[in-house]
Formats: sequence, C-alpha cells, structure tokens
Amino acid sequence: MADDADRADTRIWTAALVVIGDEILTGRTQEANLATLARWLNLQGIRLRRAEIVPDEAEPIRNAVVAALAAHDYVFTTGGIGPTHDDITVDAIAGALGLPVVVHPEAEARLRAHYGDRLTPARLRMARVPQGAELIDNPETGAPGIRLGRLFILAGVPKIMAGMLAGLDGKLEGGRPVISATIGAWCPESAVADLLGRVQAQFSAVQIGSYPFWRQRERGVEIGANFVVRAVDPQDLAAALDALRAALAEANITAVEGEI
Amino acid sequence: MADDADRADTRIWTAALVVIGDEILTGRTQEANLATLARWLNLQGIRLRRAEIVPDEAEPIRNAVVAALAAHDYVFTTGGIGPTHDDITVDAIAGALGLPVVVHPEAEARLRAHYGDRLTPARLRMARVPQGAELIDNPETGAPGIRLGRLFILAGVPKIMAGMLAGLDGKLEGGRPVISATIGAWCPESAVADLLGRVQAQFSAVQIGSYPFWRQRERGVEIGANFVVRAVDPQDLAAALDALRAALAEANITAVEGEI
Repeated sequence: MADDADRADTRIWTAALVVIGDEILTGRTQEANLATLARWLNLQGIRLRRAEIVPDEAEPIRNAVVAALAAHDYVFTTGGIGPTHDDITVDAIAGALGLPVVVHPEAEARLRAHYGDRLTPARLRMARVPQGAELIDNPETGAPGIRLGRLFILAGVPKIMAGMLAGLDGKLEGGRPVISATIGAWCPESAVADLLGRVQAQFSAVQIGSYPFWRQRERGVEIGANFVVRAVDPQDLAAALDALRAALAEANITAVEGEI
Repeated sequence: MADDADRADTRIWTAALVVIGDEILTGRTQEANLATLARWLNLQGIRLRRAEIVPDEAEPIRNAVVAALAAHDYVFTTGGIGPTHDDITVDAIAGALGLPVVVHPEAEARLRAHYGDRLTPARLRMARVPQGAELIDNPETGAPGIRLGRLFILAGVPKIMAGMLAGLDGKLEGGRPVISATIGAWCPESAVADLLGRVQAQFSAVQIGSYPFWRQRERGVEIGANFVVRAVDPQDLAAALDALRAALAEANITAVEGEI
C-alpha cells in the first residue's frame, strides 16, 4: 500500500499550451512541441490539459492566453518571439495583461554578447519583454525565453524550445506524475470493448485508453490495439493491469506486454 | 488585373478543429491530422483559423465544440468515435447541442454488412449519432463519420480521417484558396527583419511569414530562413514576391526560389 502521505498528495497541477503560428494552421509546418512539453510537464508532476493553436494575430493570442491563465496553474506559449514583423507574441501578451513592453537589461546584455556590433534594432526586439518578466535561458541562440509568473513564453523552433524547457527542470511546483503501462493485443478493439469497459468501471483511479492500429504487411493487413493504462499510484496501476490481463485471458486473447 | 467578379469574392470562410484525445495531450501520440485538414480545407477555399486539443472528457469536448461553432463557419472534430468506453465524442456533442443519441439505420446496415454476425453491441456503438445527423463515408473500415450541418465528426486514425475528408471533396461551400510561394535565404532572419517588415507594410493583402532554421552539417551549423508569402490574388502574390526579391538584392542577399 502507498503510505498516507502519498495518498494525501492529491492536488492535480494543470497546464495549457498556446501554440502561436500561421505556419502550423496552414499545414506548412508539423506541430512538434506539444508532445515534448506534455512529457516534460508530466515529469514535473503537471498535467497538460489543453492545447490551442492560434494564428499570428494579436486578438486570438490575447484571448487564448487570458482564457488559459484563468483555467490552469501554468500556461506555456510557443512561437512568435523572433526578430521579424510576424513575431508579435510579446506585444500581444503584454497587451492582454495590461503591462507595458520594456527592454530587459539582462536580455539586451546577452544579445550584445552574442551579436557584438551586429546588434541591430531588429535583434534588439528579442530583448523586449512584458514589464516584470524574468528570462528563461536559451542554450542554442542568444534570444531568451520569458517567464511572467506562471506564464512561460517559449520559442517555436523545437530544438530551442526543448533547450528552454531543460532550463526549467525542477523549477515548477507540481504534484505526482502520471505513470502508465501498455498492453497490446492482436485483435480489433471492438472485440474487447466490453471487457475494457468493465475493467475501467472497476478502477476509478486509472484511465484506460484504447488505440487501434491497422498495418499493411506482406501477408495482409494486421489489426490490433494498444491499451494504455494511466494512474498516479503504482498499486492502482498494477491492480488495473492485472485485471486487464485476467479479462483478456478469460476471453482467450493473448496479452502482449508493452506497446505492439 | 484580376477581374471585378474575382475581386468581389472576398468572403472568408473559416473552420476550427477540435482534436479529442488523451493520447495527444499526454505526448503518447503525435498529432497528425491538423496539417492534413489545413491543406484540404485550403483547397476548398476555407481557412483553418484555430485548433484545440482536449482530453477524452465530456465537459472539455462540449465547451470546445460549442465555442468553435459560435465563431467559425465549419467545425471539425477528430477522435473518440470508436467502439470503446473512452470514445465519448458522439455523446458529448449530442449533449452539448441538446440532441438525443439515436442509432442511424444506414450506419447500422453498413456495420452489419461489414461485420455480419460478428456485429456485437460494442460495434453497434459506432452507429450511434446525434439525431438528425448524416453519415460521412469511411472507405477504410466500416464505421462512418458523422455530419451534423456544419459540424463534421471524424475519426482520429490519420488514414481513416484522410479517407473521410476525401469523401467530402467539393461538398463544402468556400471562397478562394490561399496561394503561397516561398523564398529562402542563407542568412539569419534578424539580418532581414527590417526589409521584411517594410515589404509586409507595402502589401496589406499578403501575409509574409519568416521561418528560421539551423542545420548541423559537416562544415558546421548552417543558418538561414524561409520567407513564405501568402495571398488570395495571384497578382498580389507576384507583386509582393517581386518587392521581396528586390529588397533582398538591394541588401546583397541571394534569394533562393522555393523552400531551402
């Protein structure tokens, strides 16, 4: 059994992501930061509960950030913090929060160190922050990310975004991470829907997701499904997995440990 | 010059996407339908203006669908229409719209044709629709998608989702598609930020996006940026591209036609 202190730690910390970029909404660029952020947040004991993708326009950015802050413990944005005219994230967010935009002296110093006498006004744009903001280190290029309390303004380029997240490791208060395990089976998910539902109904502290697949192989299409069991408590997870294995065995379906 | 009839056709048709699935928000599964939908919508003359990703829970699904319908011409959902307990999209949407859930006779007939006497109650779940819905053909598996006026409820598995979209080709009223062209340059985007901003300011009917890249090559890191120019009118696009080429030439920066 988990001890009482563990059991008592039940506060769920939540986060939302606002992805800013016409390039995502037009299909030019495949969004690639959400999964990175989701897995990183889980390690901090924080659940990504919602993500929204908006164009490079002030009003949609403002609305999304304000709504996300109202409903979640932490809010992350990606995109729109570079030096060009389409990078309007800082101004839109400052406007949404009623804050002036100021040049952050430390950000200016970092850009000056990085660019030397090539520090143009365009590059200096990347030192502009909503008043009161702290910087988030950017190990890849000169331009820092921006923290404003529980709001984190990150770059959209995946490698830069991941570098900024790494610098935030352990700095956000969270609860217990979600742990998960996967059982696969070579059967259509509709063949196990009833038993999955019964196992789910027995275990309110776990979530069971069923993810079917169809794969074209030499010998024809292979059909199967992966069942992902998620929980906070290892005992809850183990009990639900045991019940799922038993239910599959009873239905004469071979359970494969791990994702197929 | 575009003729007056073309010029007059200025109504912008918009769409929003609601992605439903814990597997996306936990980082297990990379979202892969947004870009497909965005490009397909553009061919229909419809702009994807917003996308939201919500968990497999009734209230977030309801809120997202209702908000999306209020602000866009068309709304698409992906995910949560399979046979298992975690597939709650139909019930959540019916609840949001105050509609009862009914078994669609044609959907039942299709599933019966597909499964024969293997049509279990779980599989029959996939024939449940909000009252008044039409079916969307699914060329991959038996279970259809659902159309309810300007709301389209699609599968989450990318191949199935793409098959459903193909069946909707030409069936949605739209306006003029956005056309685009890309010019690349081997320079940091901060070196061209000012000239890009000046070209953008000259052409209010185009949007210019700047997308930097850093690539690790044998001889070191290669830095560059792609400039995507988007417009509805081919003349507007051509004029902005010419102005961008001229501005790059004036700055002694070689313009590369097409994406680098």
